[in-house]
Amino acid sequence: MDVKTIEACCEPLLAGALSEAEADDLAAAFKVLADPARLRLLSMVANAATGEACGCELVEPLGRSQPTISHHLSVLADAGLLSREKRGKWAWYRVVPDRLAVLRDALSPAR
Amino acid sequence: MDVKTIEACCEPLLAGALSEAEADDLAAAFKVLADPARLRLLSMVANAATGEACGCELVEPLGRSQPTISHHLSVLADAGLLSREKRGKWAWYRVVPDRLAVLRDALSPAR
Repeated sequence: MDVKTIEACCEPLLAGALSEAEADDLAAAFKVLADPARLRLLSMVANAATGEACGCELVEPLGRSQPTISHHLSVLADAGLLSREKRGKWAWYRVVPDRLAVLRDALSPAR
Repeated sequence: MDVKTIEACCEPLLAGALSEAEADDLAAAFKVLADPARLRLLSMVANAATGEACGCELVEPLGRSQPTISHHLSVLADAGLLSREKRGKWAWYRVVPDRLAVLRDALSPAR
């Protein structure tokens, strides 16, 4: 999966007709969210007590293999929805709320 | 594509860990938006001067075949994002803003 960083792209889709390029970018961003494992990872990181979660903590509750979890975390990080900080053997993740806001804004009522 | 109607399903994903079932439903809903042609159709219907658009008006500006447009309009209607009214030979579509709001709310900051 080729993942582009989610950028503020356009007026809300209810406020103006999307161009082809805007629609491509926005569809790619929603594709990142169109996976149940990725949504659960996002919500688990967002709800970690300290606001960050180690990749190592996320494998067991999700019940998927470690490579699968790593792949999904990479997709989320590449899209900019999670920030990643390497500490020793493991990476730690935080949600980037501004990036989710880009998608929320695209679904806003017309301004 | 098997499309379920989008229903209010859950707390915002930043406000509580999603269950597997909630994540499945939400991912399916985002999958409906994860297509550039469907996003453009949604924005074109939303921005129609009268608030509604005939399927017949949407084929040319999108530059896809009529069966392709019909398929995407059906996916959007099955998900509940568009309402459809048959008049004679053609169907007319309107955006259902409350349904988009379900997805926007799922991406809201924690309450």
